[in-house]
Amino acid sequence: MNTDDIAGFFARRQDLDPEAYLELDFAFECAGDPREAAAHLASEQSTAQWRRVGVDEDFRPRFAAKVVDLDATPREKFSVPVDGVPATDVHRVRVTLAHPHGNFGPRLPNLLSAVCGEGVFFVPKIPLIRLLDIRFPAAFLAAFAGPRFGIAGLRDLLRAYDRPIFFGVIKPNIGLPAEPFAEIGYQAMAGGLDIAKDDEMLADAPWCPLGERAALLGEAARKAGEETGEPKIYLANITDEVDRLIPLHDLAVARGAGAVLVNAMPVGLSAVRMLRAHASVPLIAHFPFVASFARLPWFGIHSRVLTRLQRLAGFDAVIMPGFGPRMMTPEAEVQDCIRACLEPMGDILPSLPVPGGSDSAATLERVFAKVGGVDFGFVPGRGVFGHPMGPAAGARSLRQAWDAIAAGVPVAERAAKHPELAAALAAFGG
Amino acid sequence: MNTDDIAGFFARRQDLDPEAYLELDFAFECAGDPREAAAHLASEQSTAQWRRVGVDEDFRPRFAAKVVDLDATPREKFSVPVDGVPATDVHRVRVTLAHPHGNFGPRLPNLLSAVCGEGVFFVPKIPLIRLLDIRFPAAFLAAFAGPRFGIAGLRDLLRAYDRPIFFGVIKPNIGLPAEPFAEIGYQAMAGGLDIAKDDEMLADAPWCPLGERAALLGEAARKAGEETGEPKIYLANITDEVDRLIPLHDLAVARGAGAVLVNAMPVGLSAVRMLRAHASVPLIAHFPFVASFARLPWFGIHSRVLTRLQRLAGFDAVIMPGFGPRMMTPEAEVQDCIRACLEPMGDILPSLPVPGGSDSAATLERVFAKVGGVDFGFVPGRGVFGHPMGPAAGARSLRQAWDAIAAGVPVAERAAKHPELAAALAAFGG
Repeated sequence: MNTDDIAGFFARRQDLDPEAYLELDFAFECAGDPREAAAHLASEQSTAQWRRVGVDEDFRPRFAAKVVDLDATPREKFSVPVDGVPATDVHRVRVTLAHPHGNFGPRLPNLLSAVCGEGVFFVPKIPLIRLLDIRFPAAFLAAFAGPRFGIAGLRDLLRAYDRPIFFGVIKPNIGLPAEPFAEIGYQAMAGGLDIAKDDEMLADAPWCPLGERAALLGEAARKAGEETGEPKIYLANITDEVDRLIPLHDLAVARGAGAVLVNAMPVGLSAVRMLRAHASVPLIAHFPFVASFARLPWFGIHSRVLTRLQRLAGFDAVIMPGFGPRMMTPEAEVQDCIRACLEPMGDILPSLPVPGGSDSAATLERVFAKVGGVDFGFVPGRGVFGHPMGPAAGARSLRQAWDAIAAGVPVAERAAKHPELAAALAAFGG
Repeated sequence: MNTDDIAGFFARRQDLDPEAYLELDFAFECAGDPREAAAHLASEQSTAQWRRVGVDEDFRPRFAAKVVDLDATPREKFSVPVDGVPATDVHRVRVTLAHPHGNFGPRLPNLLSAVCGEGVFFVPKIPLIRLLDIRFPAAFLAAFAGPRFGIAGLRDLLRAYDRPIFFGVIKPNIGLPAEPFAEIGYQAMAGGLDIAKDDEMLADAPWCPLGERAALLGEAARKAGEETGEPKIYLANITDEVDRLIPLHDLAVARGAGAVLVNAMPVGLSAVRMLRAHASVPLIAHFPFVASFARLPWFGIHSRVLTRLQRLAGFDAVIMPGFGPRMMTPEAEVQDCIRACLEPMGDILPSLPVPGGSDSAATLERVFAKVGGVDFGFVPGRGVFGHPMGPAAGARSLRQAWDAIAAGVPVAERAAKHPELAAALAAFGG
């Protein structure tokens, strides 16, 4: 690119119609001129060739992505070894691009193709790049329905206010037939879980068919709800081939599921949007596959971007890697994802953030403190279903821990009067 | 895990029913005992908790993933800086796991959830891991239709044998209205392209609606086919929301498209499988998003895995990052992906590999030599549509280069008699 070519991919924010552009934050490391690298980034994801041969035209004013912010710092070398790009004149660069969404319209697959595609990960002299964040103007958001229930709707279904929502992953997750599976689910709901959920790997398996599972767990939820006076939800994993999502939703709901779980990336965000238009119960997202592109600090896609897209696609709750070393996610990134669920987003309802990973009564206080509020879901697996006194006691230990926290009493102190809590702290307290 | 726990996740291949298991090759770097790390990897992706509390049962024999091969080499430290896992007693490990596919059945989203999910990227003491390859037994493959046409079917449609298939990406890709877009597509097909294709970022846009584009380019393909005596195909990008794939396929085909392009990961592999059951024309895959998890040598998912899954989902051709530094993909990985398209896979037809990236008449000989055969697609963009003499000359230069290669004549020598080829070598030959 010559100087004029480069200039065609730069703009001042105030000269652009803000409703016509997405904003994208990238961090990258490049060799050579950072302005030229940023211009290539803008070009490759929009008008890579902006005129026909022999025709005097320029598609950039309307169709080019434009660099609106750039901050470059020289570095001695790339953060990690890189093949094929000489490590000379290396910079670490932070850019914001304004990307005209009219290039593709309010369509999730085309959005992903433009902002996470060849035009990001195959840009000359940018071997390391990470999409850090995405912001949508109201004009783009208006085409999306977002969550049907959101946090307030979920709370109304459960009549659970001013406290976290207590999920539990029924375990053993793989291999247990529907009847004993439902029995331990029942115990945990009777003990205090709001939502007994299928593991994200549990499909409509012959040894535990979804229809049978939903019938038994729907009945378990009804019974536990009646006994405790608190509505309960069985959360059925309907992750399956795209053309089975709606039939499985209908089957699960008809049998007794009160919400459905979908593994967002394996199924695809667009299929979730399709399901959202049909679904009559809350949609809960699980995160398999996301770490493969979100884990590393200098490459891929920040998980907050996926959180925003899951909310946009219509998930009422987003299960995400949570706090603590077990989930290998920096605390700041978990906080970013929680904020992405909660903060204003046009008319799109907030999604319930559910930061998870080896939780139990022993970690509740820490998670609550880090979230800084009650609007979150708490999702132990072993912390309930591996509790030494059984699942009912495991669930009870969560509620006991929460009662202590809500009363401002140290959880360990409260344990003296509650054997379930004491056993949880002993087993999982580390 | 204690020694017995670990042993429960190891098996000898000869003791397992090969038809009941997928095989997965992983490379990882771990801290501490490599056998324990591998057992955790097997456990996390299958029976993480293999018994109920207080019940004498063990789900591992039938449901656990099992380590069948392990090779560990001590290292001084991790390949790249890692947070949260102390770099003590580091090993680089290569394992093969046998994963019981009955855990989830022949369903792509559930397969991805199990083998690219939490059970791979959140395994204790394994901060760096890459899924290198996947092998399917006949019992699993039998549930998949695979490509409808495959390479032989594509060749029959084009009556193009014993040579590469010449694709070209119509450029400018974004912003050009349907009429001039079709005009340059026509020129390139008349000049010698087999397939004039939409860019992967070109959607059903208001300034170039798919229906209008397909009508004009269908007519262009018909006309160019008649004039050249070679059937031509307009390849329409129908990437869109999942619930529009079938309507857009029907629209594009009715108007004149001879094949459809789908961005596999942004749309989702399962949606492609759904489309495959309906589609009447070849399905061609493009690769946006894949690099975000496939690019790095010590993390994520090897692109060959995605290639195999795209073939399984039913793509007749797979466009992939090709040879040369521009596409930042090691040559061995491109070769692996090409082989994944071509090698035997049960009754699943081969897919045409289309390694692409800044190609032109100047790179054809190199690509042909590296592929080692004629069964590939060649997909220039600028090499045709940025040719200094225009798109017809750009396409002609490809065929001239191929004629030279087929005749065993050096391409540069042939250029002396062919101004289009000479211009291509001058413009793109580097």
